[in-house]
Amino acid sequence: MRAALAQGDGVHGATSPNPPVGCAVLDADGQLVGLGGTQVAGGPHAEVVALAAAGEKARGGTAVVTLEPCSHHGRTPPCTEALVAAGVARVVYAVADPNPQAAGGASRLAGAGVEVRGGLLAEEAERGALRAWLHWQRTGRPHVTWKYAATLDGRVAAADGTSRWISSPESRAEVHRLRTRIDAIVVGRGTVLADDPALTARDAEGRPLRRQPLRVVVGTGELPSGAKVLDGSAPTAHLRTRDPRAVLADLAGRGVVDVLLEGGPTLAGAFACAGLIDRVLAYIAPSLLGEGAVALGASGVSTITGAHRMVVEQVTMSGPDVRVSAVAVRD
Amino acid sequence: MRAALAQGDGVHGATSPNPPVGCAVLDADGQLVGLGGTQVAGGPHAEVVALAAAGEKARGGTAVVTLEPCSHHGRTPPCTEALVAAGVARVVYAVADPNPQAAGGASRLAGAGVEVRGGLLAEEAERGALRAWLHWQRTGRPHVTWKYAATLDGRVAAADGTSRWISSPESRAEVHRLRTRIDAIVVGRGTVLADDPALTARDAEGRPLRRQPLRVVVGTGELPSGAKVLDGSAPTAHLRTRDPRAVLADLAGRGVVDVLLEGGPTLAGAFACAGLIDRVLAYIAPSLLGEGAVALGASGVSTITGAHRMVVEQVTMSGPDVRVSAVAVRD
Repeated sequence: MRAALAQGDGVHGATSPNPPVGCAVLDADGQLVGLGGTQVAGGPHAEVVALAAAGEKARGGTAVVTLEPCSHHGRTPPCTEALVAAGVARVVYAVADPNPQAAGGASRLAGAGVEVRGGLLAEEAERGALRAWLHWQRTGRPHVTWKYAATLDGRVAAADGTSRWISSPESRAEVHRLRTRIDAIVVGRGTVLADDPALTARDAEGRPLRRQPLRVVVGTGELPSGAKVLDGSAPTAHLRTRDPRAVLADLAGRGVVDVLLEGGPTLAGAFACAGLIDRVLAYIAPSLLGEGAVALGASGVSTITGAHRMVVEQVTMSGPDVRVSAVAVRD
Repeated sequence: MRAALAQGDGVHGATSPNPPVGCAVLDADGQLVGLGGTQVAGGPHAEVVALAAAGEKARGGTAVVTLEPCSHHGRTPPCTEALVAAGVARVVYAVADPNPQAAGGASRLAGAGVEVRGGLLAEEAERGALRAWLHWQRTGRPHVTWKYAATLDGRVAAADGTSRWISSPESRAEVHRLRTRIDAIVVGRGTVLADDPALTARDAEGRPLRRQPLRVVVGTGELPSGAKVLDGSAPTAHLRTRDPRAVLADLAGRGVVDVLLEGGPTLAGAFACAGLIDRVLAYIAPSLLGEGAVALGASGVSTITGAHRMVVEQVTMSGPDVRVSAVAVRD
C-alpha cells in the first residue's frame, strides 16, 4: 500500500477532476510486478496503468489500490472490468469511493469472485493525495488550504509593509513544491497590488517547475497591466467577485478540486467567515515583530466561544520554522 | 546523570538565588547509594545532601553532579571539601560553573587526587533547571521567559476582549506547574485591571500548589484594592515603573533569578524592545479569530530585517495545542 500511496503522490496535482490514485500489482508469489498512477483526466486510471506494466504476471496476483476501484463507464471503462479481465485474485484498497456513480466497485469485484479488502492505511490515504478529491466528492466544493507564513507573534509583514522574507528558504521551497500539486492558487487583488507576486511554482534559482497551477485573482477592480500574474507564464483567471462561495463555484466549473489560498488577511478572513477554510498550513518563523499586518482579518467572530475551531493534524519543522497543519472542525 | 538531572528538576524553583543542582552518588561498584538536590538558600547543596544519604558507601565511589562543584565558602562550606572528605574517587559533572567566585572546583578536586570529568549531558543540563541561573551568572540579569497563549492567527483575545479560554486545560495546567518552578511572575497593571488574575499556581480544582512565585505587577498607577493579586495568598510586589531594566534590577535585588512574563502585549513589547526576552513559550491553540488583541505590541521593530530573531528549541503538543519553546538569538 505504501508503494501505491507513493504512486498517488507522484501524480498528485495532475489528475483533477479525477482522483490522484496509485496502484501496485503483486504476482501470485507476492512479488511487485507493476506500479501506476492515474493519468491526466481522460487518460487511464492507476489500476489500468499498473496492470499494463504487470502484464500476464498479474494473473492470480493482488492489486493494491489507494481508492476503491471504480465500476462505472466514465471517459474510461470501469477499472473493475480491467481487474477481472487481468485475472487478479485479490484487491486491497485504502479508501471507499464516496462517488455514488463510481462506488460499488468492491461488491462488483466480489461478485466476480475476487477477494476484496478495504480500509488498509485508510487514514493515511485520506490525508494524502486523495484529501481534496474526497472532500470535493463529499461536499461538492473544492478543498481549500489556507497557507500563510507569520512570525511567532502572528505578523505577516512588518510595520513598513515589508515581508520578504518572514519564512525560511526551506519553507518557501516547500510552498513552491506544494504549488505543483494543487489545481489553483488564489489571492486577492490587494495582494497583487501590494506584492506583485508571480504565483508560479519555481525552484531555488527561479526556474519554473514542471507543473503550474491556475493563478486566480479575486476582486472587482482592474489588475495593473504589467502585473506578473498576467505575464502568460501560467494560466490566470481574474474572478470579479469578493464572495468566496462564488469563487469556489467558478473554480469547480473549471475542474478545480484542490485550492491553495495564499491571499492576504482580508480574503482569508472572508473565506474563514464563510466556513470555507478546510485546512490551515502555517509556517511560523521564530521571530518577533510586535507591529504589522496579522495573518487573518475579520472573519465574523466577535467572542472567544465563536472561534473557528480546528484540530492540529501534523507539526513538523521546515528548516528553522514550525510548520503546523490543522484541519477545520465542523459541527 | 539523568538521575542527577531529575534531582535538580525536583528542587527547581526552590533554591534561588542558588542554582537548582542535582547529585547522584554511586559506590565503588557503580551502585546508586545517594541522591540529593540543593536545598533552599542557606541550606546544604546537592552534593552534601547526596553524600549524607550515601554515608560511608561513597568512599571510592563516584559523584555525578549537574553543575561543577563549588570551591568557595558561601553560606555553606565548599562542596569540593565535602567530596574529598567523603573519599569519592571520581566526580562527573554536566556544566562548568560560570560564577568566578565558585569556579575552580574541578581543578581543586583534581589537585586532591579526584578523577574529574565535565560536560556529560551538558546541553540537556543547560536547557533544564539550571537555565535561568546560568543566564543570571553570565549576564547579571534574571532570565525572562515570555509565556503567552494565542490562536493560530496570533490573537490573545477575541474582538469583545474575551480570552477564557484560548488554550486547553492541559496547557493551563502545565503553566500552573511552571509557575511553581519560577521565582516571579510579572504582569502589567493593565492585565490586573482587565483580567484580575490571581497569578497563583493552582491545581485543576483551584487549590494552591505547594510553591507560589512572587507576584509582580508593573505600572505607575494604583491597583484596585480588591484585586486578586493583593489577596495575601502569595507575596506580591507592585513596581511603580514601566522600564523593563528597572523591573529586572529590582527583582535581582530580591534574589529573583527566573522570571515568567505573563503580561499583555504592551509590557511584552517593552521587554522585547529592550532585548530582555530570553525565551518565548507559546501555546498555540488550533482556532482562528481574525479580530482581537495580538500577543505582542510595539517592540521597536519597523522593518522585516529588524525582527527580533529566535531559534526554536522544542516543539511539543500540549493537549490539542502546539507548544513552541524558542530562545533569543543575540548578535
